[in-house]
Amino acid sequence: MDVPFSRRHIGASPEEQRRMLDAIGYGSVDELMDAAIPGVIRDNEKSKLPAARSEAEVLDELRGLAGRNTPMVSMIGLGYHGTHTPPVIRRSVLENPAWYTAYTPYQPEISQGRLEALLNFQTMVSDLTGLPTANASLLDEATAAGEAMTLARRSSKATSNVYLVDADTLPQTVTILRTRAEPLGIEIRLHDLDADLPGEFFGLHLQYPGASGAVRDHEAVVAAAHGKGAIVTVAADLLALCLLREPGAIGADVAVGSAQRFGVPMGYGGPHAAYIAVRRGLERTLPGRLVGVSKDADGKVAYRLALQTREQHIRREKATSNICTAQVLLAVIASMYAVYHGPEGLHGIAARTHRHATMLATALRKAGVELANEHFFDTVTAVVPGRASAVVGAAAAGGVNLRQIDGDRVSAACDETTTAEHVRTVLDAFGVSSDGVGDALAALPEGLRRTTDYLTHEVFHSYRSEHAMLRYLRRLSDRDYALDRGMIPLGSCTMKLNAAAEMEPISWPGFADMHPYAPADQARGYKVLTDQLEEWLADLTGYDAVSLQPNAGSQGELAGLLAIRGYHRANGHGERDVCLIPQSAHGTNAASAVMAGMRVVVVATDSDGNVDPADLDAKIDQHRDRLAAIMVTYPSTHGVYEAGIAELCAKVHDAGGQVYVDGANLNALVGYARPGRFGADVSHLNLHKTFCIPHGGGGPGVGPVAVRAHLADHLPTVSAAPQGSAGILPISWAYIRLMGPDGLAKATGAAVLAANYVAARLREHFPVLYSGAKGLVAHECILDLRPLTKQTGVTVDDVAKRLIDYGFHAPTMSFPVAGTLMVEPTESEDLAEIDRFCEAMIAIRAEIDRVGGGIWPKADNPLRNAPHTAAAVTADEWEHPYPRSLAAYPPGVDRTAKYWPPVRRIDGAYGDRNLVCSCPAPEAFEEV
Amino acid sequence: MDVPFSRRHIGASPEEQRRMLDAIGYGSVDELMDAAIPGVIRDNEKSKLPAARSEAEVLDELRGLAGRNTPMVSMIGLGYHGTHTPPVIRRSVLENPAWYTAYTPYQPEISQGRLEALLNFQTMVSDLTGLPTANASLLDEATAAGEAMTLARRSSKATSNVYLVDADTLPQTVTILRTRAEPLGIEIRLHDLDADLPGEFFGLHLQYPGASGAVRDHEAVVAAAHGKGAIVTVAADLLALCLLREPGAIGADVAVGSAQRFGVPMGYGGPHAAYIAVRRGLERTLPGRLVGVSKDADGKVAYRLALQTREQHIRREKATSNICTAQVLLAVIASMYAVYHGPEGLHGIAARTHRHATMLATALRKAGVELANEHFFDTVTAVVPGRASAVVGAAAAGGVNLRQIDGDRVSAACDETTTAEHVRTVLDAFGVSSDGVGDALAALPEGLRRTTDYLTHEVFHSYRSEHAMLRYLRRLSDRDYALDRGMIPLGSCTMKLNAAAEMEPISWPGFADMHPYAPADQARGYKVLTDQLEEWLADLTGYDAVSLQPNAGSQGELAGLLAIRGYHRANGHGERDVCLIPQSAHGTNAASAVMAGMRVVVVATDSDGNVDPADLDAKIDQHRDRLAAIMVTYPSTHGVYEAGIAELCAKVHDAGGQVYVDGANLNALVGYARPGRFGADVSHLNLHKTFCIPHGGGGPGVGPVAVRAHLADHLPTVSAAPQGSAGILPISWAYIRLMGPDGLAKATGAAVLAANYVAARLREHFPVLYSGAKGLVAHECILDLRPLTKQTGVTVDDVAKRLIDYGFHAPTMSFPVAGTLMVEPTESEDLAEIDRFCEAMIAIRAEIDRVGGGIWPKADNPLRNAPHTAAAVTADEWEHPYPRSLAAYPPGVDRTAKYWPPVRRIDGAYGDRNLVCSCPAPEAFEEV
Repeated sequence: MDVPFSRRHIGASPEEQRRMLDAIGYGSVDELMDAAIPGVIRDNEKSKLPAARSEAEVLDELRGLAGRNTPMVSMIGLGYHGTHTPPVIRRSVLENPAWYTAYTPYQPEISQGRLEALLNFQTMVSDLTGLPTANASLLDEATAAGEAMTLARRSSKATSNVYLVDADTLPQTVTILRTRAEPLGIEIRLHDLDADLPGEFFGLHLQYPGASGAVRDHEAVVAAAHGKGAIVTVAADLLALCLLREPGAIGADVAVGSAQRFGVPMGYGGPHAAYIAVRRGLERTLPGRLVGVSKDADGKVAYRLALQTREQHIRREKATSNICTAQVLLAVIASMYAVYHGPEGLHGIAARTHRHATMLATALRKAGVELANEHFFDTVTAVVPGRASAVVGAAAAGGVNLRQIDGDRVSAACDETTTAEHVRTVLDAFGVSSDGVGDALAALPEGLRRTTDYLTHEVFHSYRSEHAMLRYLRRLSDRDYALDRGMIPLGSCTMKLNAAAEMEPISWPGFADMHPYAPADQARGYKVLTDQLEEWLADLTGYDAVSLQPNAGSQGELAGLLAIRGYHRANGHGERDVCLIPQSAHGTNAASAVMAGMRVVVVATDSDGNVDPADLDAKIDQHRDRLAAIMVTYPSTHGVYEAGIAELCAKVHDAGGQVYVDGANLNALVGYARPGRFGADVSHLNLHKTFCIPHGGGGPGVGPVAVRAHLADHLPTVSAAPQGSAGILPISWAYIRLMGPDGLAKATGAAVLAANYVAARLREHFPVLYSGAKGLVAHECILDLRPLTKQTGVTVDDVAKRLIDYGFHAPTMSFPVAGTLMVEPTESEDLAEIDRFCEAMIAIRAEIDRVGGGIWPKADNPLRNAPHTAAAVTADEWEHPYPRSLAAYPPGVDRTAKYWPPVRRIDGAYGDRNLVCSCPAPEAFEEV
Repeated sequence: MDVPFSRRHIGASPEEQRRMLDAIGYGSVDELMDAAIPGVIRDNEKSKLPAARSEAEVLDELRGLAGRNTPMVSMIGLGYHGTHTPPVIRRSVLENPAWYTAYTPYQPEISQGRLEALLNFQTMVSDLTGLPTANASLLDEATAAGEAMTLARRSSKATSNVYLVDADTLPQTVTILRTRAEPLGIEIRLHDLDADLPGEFFGLHLQYPGASGAVRDHEAVVAAAHGKGAIVTVAADLLALCLLREPGAIGADVAVGSAQRFGVPMGYGGPHAAYIAVRRGLERTLPGRLVGVSKDADGKVAYRLALQTREQHIRREKATSNICTAQVLLAVIASMYAVYHGPEGLHGIAARTHRHATMLATALRKAGVELANEHFFDTVTAVVPGRASAVVGAAAAGGVNLRQIDGDRVSAACDETTTAEHVRTVLDAFGVSSDGVGDALAALPEGLRRTTDYLTHEVFHSYRSEHAMLRYLRRLSDRDYALDRGMIPLGSCTMKLNAAAEMEPISWPGFADMHPYAPADQARGYKVLTDQLEEWLADLTGYDAVSLQPNAGSQGELAGLLAIRGYHRANGHGERDVCLIPQSAHGTNAASAVMAGMRVVVVATDSDGNVDPADLDAKIDQHRDRLAAIMVTYPSTHGVYEAGIAELCAKVHDAGGQVYVDGANLNALVGYARPGRFGADVSHLNLHKTFCIPHGGGGPGVGPVAVRAHLADHLPTVSAAPQGSAGILPISWAYIRLMGPDGLAKATGAAVLAANYVAARLREHFPVLYSGAKGLVAHECILDLRPLTKQTGVTVDDVAKRLIDYGFHAPTMSFPVAGTLMVEPTESEDLAEIDRFCEAMIAIRAEIDRVGGGIWPKADNPLRNAPHTAAAVTADEWEHPYPRSLAAYPPGVDRTAKYWPPVRRIDGAYGDRNLVCSCPAPEAFEEV
């Protein structure tokens, strides 16, 4: 028999596991798990998952599913367009573990590569929209529009609750705006731009060009809206902006949209990077992540996430956005597309796209077909009374998907991939001659032609050849530390293996080149895949129904809480609006509850890190009549299996509330316990944690929501695309198929074993803060540095940065408890790597003692000065009280394969005080 | 219009080219080319190549061709077997530019990663064959057998000219042995091992297991052959050796074979890594490349090519092998397959393969089908009188290809991918019940079961999880410098872009999973692709016929020279055996001529680097009656368009000789001149130079031979597989399709422009040794360091190693002229990169002057101490007369993205004196 894939996924071999068990005093993984997991939640029902298959078998099976999808020429439009991913970008970014296995750049010193790429993205968006500050991406255009709506609510002085929405807005955007507005008491009002503006509204959403393709001059309506104190958001197509006047120039306060058509495959709906940009004065209200420029300890330019401590980190229940994931990998691709093509290339692509649309329109007009719009960029809407269905059918027979708006109207959206041949196929479908189809008149209104430059920064002019691009991508990725270099023991983040066999299929055209609104009979492979994945996730979590739609954990939370809200309202309990949240919860939880129209009530945790039963009772009593839900993470965010979970569920149920179990820590449960069976009503899962979707340097994430039957009908639509980020679901499908039920359970056991082994090895050097039954932790452990910090002045930051010198990514810093490090080794690390980490931590403890013992001054020691760059350690002068060799090569570091951080410690506060969020001028890098 | 691919392939933009033209004083590339290329060879006939297409179009077209191939379950065997390439190895090696764009490790300090991988390969081969020294791979099993034959000829004291070959040898091996033997006067005699040995022979070739599947105990025949003074080669299957007694243990002097089934796709015949291993005492006779262990300037373990100065480098016309390419990329894959599976994994795969074969045999026997062999490993040969064709047809209908040996015999070869289902399909085809097919008896002779350990080195036990493997691959590739980091301006090597779009298709199952002997109706896509590629290459070179078969340039040379030999013999001029070769030729040329049974006569070159016309006349006169051919490179190996080429051709023709133009420098001709039209009769091309097949760290290469019509019928078979390394031909096909005739000509112009620009910028710092008309060079230029060396003691080696500190791979050292550097920038570098190189060379010149001026001692300066490792520059002590910062960061080096070599300068001679060619024990790496 072949080695099963689970032996490749799980790092420690059976023999290594035996050594680890010996170290913690257990005879087997089963024995350990019996001791660690409360019996009351232990679930021994046999899984109905199919047995494990080999990598070759799974790839064959996926090839079969991809073959059952039929990628057609898509002219459906609606925000999803055909695009050519430059092969060099596909290979060196999308298919390169150095990019896709990276984590969110919270440790900026070892993330300079992707931070630069994101800064390029922000610069690109800012330039194209004509608005000075753009963030590092959002989830999709529709949710970005939702974020813009709440931003407008926060920023507008108007008192109205009306949010006015252009009637020519993408339908999926309208749906998401409605979902988001209702619990917040906002009224969505659709508005035909030909009509007069209504009396009062706090914000206005405009689509530019419209969903019908219409290009309108919005300047007057923007001014009028401003006159009423409203904030105006323009949802704009980035490619159109290469030819059209930019939103900033027509007065927009906010611009949102999708960067999909900049080289990111449609992927049956996602993942793609959405963008948001704002005018001056609104930059500190931006949701999501913002990359900014700061400086390092040498005063050199360095990048990091700006304003990082705002939003859910500190606001919690006062937050107005629950966004924490960006779409980094996709934003990187889109930005590199712009870097590779440059402004002249993008202009050429836009002009060609426009020309194909005008060719189509000219021929239709000549044949007497009525067009809905005189002005358009890429989308031509034809009025063919009673014939729409026939035209769409004829085009499909020719291999082209059009959009049928209704019985009388058809639209065709051109894109980068459109050819004259496609235009002819469409004309044939209309029964129109394509003779002389080359004739075409530009169809952009004279006054809306773009006159300003964009992408003038050097980075958009330096990498035109494939060699130059290839090397730029390599240079950036070499600056970063990702899983392909070593472990990333980030507690609560589950940085496990993203196997190549799981990743390969997402590049295949059968999965990548599908439009989300393609007819069902063209997407049979996706149907099988998503049905099976839903079924398998339901099986693993013990729930009755799963929706794959939420394209981030935060959206899964929102969907789950809205389902609870819907359920209570359907039962006549609209008054139930209190959501209990333990002190130790992820900030996102509270923010999601607020977005779901709930009031957050915090429940205390006791000294063991568990939910305080007395306070829970008190809060339930206090809010019994209005109790909507409790939201807990299990195992807790302290990394402990709380014994009282079943009782907690029962208490809340008794009081009429619903139980939301955040699935962030599901990696400690799969195969052993199922939230849907131990008392929870709803969970969201993080496919990018437990189910192997790579973190992509800070996204994509996928956050399916799983519910018991009574909530299933109340699940809302929370993402633009019907199946959310469908394009990466093959990853999780493959993982489950490769592991089988036994492999998945083994992975859980290995993860818990690894965490307890780390706890055991490090306990005498750093106190382990919380543990559960028999002193065991779950899949992660918290190392408490506070006593050492007090005694020596060495902080968690110092330790985290010094770990870089040792060749590691730091554990999670100061979450959930300030002054601590939370370590999650996951099941995918072998014993050698885990030991290497433990030995680094022990060596660091010895370094701390040298500071504590006065051998090294508090202000000048290897910890405080970490990380050490090669430039710093090779400087001609060296005046530190410790040798260069110790700075460069602490014990255990391989001298022939050292990872060197590109910058020294970064001053985050400096950057926040001097907010710069687009590419700095070359002079900024000059040697001083 | 989209940016054409040629703008991505060609580094310098039109604007940059204008600046470069200004610098050398020409108005346009056309004007430059008119001046550089002799009018007499300039060819303005319009190419019939199809016009350029975009990357997306070409990928679609190739997807269509791949779809016209039908990869079946292959049980054809004959040395090509189904295998599972572990996805992590496919993604991180085969699809990773850090591995595939590397050059041959002639600069070992920046090649430690692939040298380690090759040392693993050698160790693996040595362990499995039981012979102490293995080389770093050969081209295919058949040519390896040919090399073993000539090795035997060199080493045997027997005077016989008979080479005895086991009648159960792979047919393609016999063919190649015959091809190779005939010109050398060796007689191949097939020998049935059941018969007695004949009287005299100098060598014996045994197949183990045999082509029929038979496993025999060869020990007695080996001993008997040794008794006659013969050298015995055993061609052995590496997977079988996991279960079978190793060749070394049965007395073999040499073992050869293929490592294909260790994870390398069949690829319709190649490329794969063949191996050769020898017993103690023969190690210095090994052909090809041998990686050995030595030490660096700090005394640390370091790897480099051993015995590098032997073979064609110094032997030239006395050489007995013309091999210079290895199959590095494929050897890396095969070695990593062994690293990932380890001995227990390989044993498991071998046992499973064997068990499937025994299941098949047991069921056939039970049904009364006669089997040809009692003992076998993976291949079962059945005797089915008159029914062979029907059985093969029935199996094919079930999706399985069998081998039809003749009308009465069918064989089925099991492999790693065989399943019980496949066995059932085969049994069905025989009309045999598969009931109880699980029963099986081992079919290896008791005395041939392997009893010795293999792969005991730590490296084969350390990387069992995918994370561990992924990181090992990354760590190794990070030690190396390849095109993904920067330019590799190696003269005569044409290190140009290997575009992602060209590379992607080779991983597709439609190209990768085809057996070379699959029926033609299953390989229609390959047929179209190879026919078109032959046609296009004929068009570009002006010849009448092209054979794609030679799987390296050396094999192309041999094929071309053998065609000339055949032509003369057919014309009754068997006496024509003199091959004129200019002094400046590649060493391979002479070696190939010797292998083709020719006598080499050297023609002098004049002071301009051209063939000396007077000496040419003299040599022609002297050998007029026996003149077979002249072999010249054009442009010359001096990088100059010799004006006299047409005249040279005419003179040789007049004397009855044929003209062989080595196509190594075709990158300076494509689109401007065609050897087949300016007088040559035959050329080989290097698809791994001009036509973008990546160098793979030292192979694969592909060396098609192109001939005028009169030679076409005389082309021999020189590779094992009918289409040679067919699996990578999509790369060159894609390149030509992407560039179109205009793009290809532009590339040539850009390459010549770049070389002349470099020559112009560097001429005042280093004399440019040769140039042609108007002082122009062709596509490369030679910088003469000899005067500086004489004056300052700084050598080409010092400059080459110092270039590493500056972030470059050195140009070609001391070829074709000792003491010089030959620079070939190629068309794929942009002006920024070319300027960066020029500036580094200028800065180095200033450093040389500081040595010359006595500012730095001759024995201690940045040149002599180069390259500087990070460990060296961060050492606590620094006693050099130049600062650390200059050692680490010479002018122009980016401090945030420096490539650090992993070792200091390597002492090659030490390693040659103390030859160690397998993995050193871990103690060797201990810090001292």
